[in-house]
Amino acid sequence: MLNELKTQVHEANMLLPRMGLAIFTWGNASGIDRASGLVAIKPSGVPYELLRPDRMVVVDLTGKVIEGDLKPSSDTPTHLELYRRFPSIGGVAHTHSRHATIFAQNRQPIPPHGTTHADHFHGPVPCARPLTDEEINGDYELNAGKVIAECHPDHVGIPAALLAFHGPFAWGPDALAAARNAAVLEEIAYMALHCQAAGPVSQALLDRHYFRKHGPGASYGQN
Amino acid sequence: MLNELKTQVHEANMLLPRMGLAIFTWGNASGIDRASGLVAIKPSGVPYELLRPDRMVVVDLTGKVIEGDLKPSSDTPTHLELYRRFPSIGGVAHTHSRHATIFAQNRQPIPPHGTTHADHFHGPVPCARPLTDEEINGDYELNAGKVIAECHPDHVGIPAALLAFHGPFAWGPDALAAARNAAVLEEIAYMALHCQAAGPVSQALLDRHYFRKHGPGASYGQN
Amino acid sequence: MLNELKTQVHEANMLLPRMGLAIFTWGNASGIDRASGLVAIKPSGVPYELLRPDRMVVVDLTGKVIEGDLKPSSDTPTHLELYRRFPSIGGVAHTHSRHATIFAQNRQPIPPHGTTHADHFHGPVPCARPLTDEEINGDYELNAGKVIAECHPDHVGIPAALLAFHGPFAWGPDALAAARNAAVLEEIAYMALHCQAAGPVSQALLDRHYFRKHGPGASYGQN
Amino acid sequence: MLNELKTQVHEANMLLPRMGLAIFTWGNASGIDRASGLVAIKPSGVPYELLRPDRMVVVDLTGKVIEGDLKPSSDTPTHLELYRRFPSIGGVAHTHSRHATIFAQNRQPIPPHGTTHADHFHGPVPCARPLTDEEINGDYELNAGKVIAECHPDHVGIPAALLAFHGPFAWGPDALAAARNAAVLEEIAYMALHCQAAGPVSQALLDRHYFRKHGPGASYGQN
Repeated sequence: MLNELKTQVHEANMLLPRMGLAIFTWGNASGIDRASGLVAIKPSGVPYELLRPDRMVVVDLTGKVIEGDLKPSSDTPTHLELYRRFPSIGGVAHTHSRHATIFAQNRQPIPPHGTTHADHFHGPVPCARPLTDEEINGDYELNAGKVIAECHPDHVGIPAALLAFHGPFAWGPDALAAARNAAVLEEIAYMALHCQAAGPVSQALLDRHYFRKHGPGASYGQN
Repeated sequence: MLNELKTQVHEANMLLPRMGLAIFTWGNASGIDRASGLVAIKPSGVPYELLRPDRMVVVDLTGKVIEGDLKPSSDTPTHLELYRRFPSIGGVAHTHSRHATIFAQNRQPIPPHGTTHADHFHGPVPCARPLTDEEINGDYELNAGKVIAECHPDHVGIPAALLAFHGPFAWGPDALAAARNAAVLEEIAYMALHCQAAGPVSQALLDRHYFRKHGPGASYGQN
Repeated sequence: MLNELKTQVHEANMLLPRMGLAIFTWGNASGIDRASGLVAIKPSGVPYELLRPDRMVVVDLTGKVIEGDLKPSSDTPTHLELYRRFPSIGGVAHTHSRHATIFAQNRQPIPPHGTTHADHFHGPVPCARPLTDEEINGDYELNAGKVIAECHPDHVGIPAALLAFHGPFAWGPDALAAARNAAVLEEIAYMALHCQAAGPVSQALLDRHYFRKHGPGASYGQN
Repeated sequence: MLNELKTQVHEANMLLPRMGLAIFTWGNASGIDRASGLVAIKPSGVPYELLRPDRMVVVDLTGKVIEGDLKPSSDTPTHLELYRRFPSIGGVAHTHSRHATIFAQNRQPIPPHGTTHADHFHGPVPCARPLTDEEINGDYELNAGKVIAECHPDHVGIPAALLAFHGPFAWGPDALAAARNAAVLEEIAYMALHCQAAGPVSQALLDRHYFRKHGPGASYGQN
């Protein structure tokens, strides 16, 4: 069932430690099959070296496990809320990568300091507001998804957000794109940490780079 | 004798260089068999590539070598003091990992800046007071264990401490858990170094994350 | 056609991820055959692991594709402008390496803080002025090459420049030398980020190191 | 001739890139046979992957090449001056490792912030005074050795120094020990860069750690 999806979700999860974005079991990626509304996601607390495509857990958009002997990632309700709120996305990745997490812990958005940012994110990467104690003590992981969706000005152009005091979530057309966006986020967070305000980057430059890679007029790559 | 323990202690020691926590011979891990009161520990000054399970040294809780041709780690008395003072722990790991050591050298505890910390440590990681000259010139390594035990508010919930001007000690239910906690400590130390006080993290959030992974109500992982 | 050139350009491109200068498809290298005026360059958006020498794209100095089924790098017009303006160079490399990019984003030249710099760059590495909105909305990549050429006091002695808000370009006698200069630039940028003004470095020292490795009196190496 | 020495010097040179202390050809190690007064050293400008034990160059203490078809490292006169001035040492290593070089470029000694330092260096690692223009324009590499020897309070207890605006030199009983000390220096430089003055480290602690590993009362290791 959904073997292709599970294979890609597995690959996306393996990208996280390989790109230095997660140690132990600290990151998770998922992908959705929009036709059936089913999501494949990393099992909870299983180290990457023990993952296999057939160990991905399949859940529906209410969180019910449809296939798999393992429990899904504890962050599953956050992933599902993002799939419900952002109907165009096909994959989600969450990590505790060092520099994106530093911005989350500092409750700072990541401003566009240059074209590396603009190539992938069409504006600042926002930081969601902290959850209230009530939200934390309630449906915590669900509420995490809600504040991310709530803070987000443009989930298509800016496929990532920071969860305050926690870490980054990234998404994209599929699970691999989401994992790659998590890697991009870490790169721009590292650089932003050491950037001083050099004066605002021209919006024309940010647009030029973003639209060189995205949308109908994109010229980058082989398509 | 204690072959299973020695195998795990060997594995825990090998984790230290593999996770980037130690070069040369700069870290050591041990594990205890509580039934017999015997501890297996890295031999002193032997590079990781020459370690083998049967080269682990077995000592009793007074430090007497029970098995093995090699001398035990020079930090053995610190490990033993921690085993005596913290009866619930089964493993200890010591490293000079860069960022945890920076905090130790700065004599600063590592405050919880976010959920990566809270997932593993239920409160600030304390920094023990510096040893007096008398303590240094006396049973130095034993006294190191004493000041760690003395400074520690909750050795179960916070399985690590910093030894002032020296570096981190971490522990856990067994040697591998101790080595993993040493790796976690390095991650949170790196991030804490670059974190500004963003306002206090809600205790509810710290509790939520800690108890998601620990204690009877834990929901993380496959158990 | 130009097989030797394509082989070297391939090798130069592969050096970028291997030296940690580029992830995904974020860097590109090219080389020119001055006799024919033909340039071999990385295809656009193709990941390094899929590159092969025969996938390098051959273009002439006007940007016309002469050989190859793939589209050339989107930065090709910048490379070509550098070849036109700097007639003595044989290779160009562009990356988004973290620390050189930080300087570019900060719009700061990289001053010579020591002999590592002086061994390779005979003076500060300049940062080109930001492009105007008109230049961005016009022939953007061509204009990038123009401002680099315009800002550059000595393209032989200082084989690199920063493009404001974007990242580094490096060049050299051939593609491999250009890629290596991109690696040198990243090293000196990292160190410069943490250097305080320690007082000016003696020009005699900068000259000594530069001319030890370059020019008719060079004594370094085996020639 | 001196095959054992050349084998060890080769190994010491290979340690430099493997420990992340040198890229390209940026570091060199040598060893001396005190009986014959002959020194084996890396050839100039040869990349590490092309090094072999029989490519090490043998020179005498005046710098005359005794064996080998290649030119010796351009830093040879500095190595030789250190061998002449420090009669008890058997190996020298020079790198441009990032953090030790940052201290050299900042003209700052590396103070002992903790026991990692004290385990290997019995006091601050000094930074030699900058060379005068006359010294630079004269026997530059020889004069580099002279200012290092001149600045050095205790070449046995502190087997390293920084050359202002240039980088670190380390030494030891043999070439491998020198290369290892270069690695230690990089570790303590990294940590010192992020250390605030936490109040002076007790001399008793520094002594305890140093003499635990060095001298007749040393207890560390298997001897």
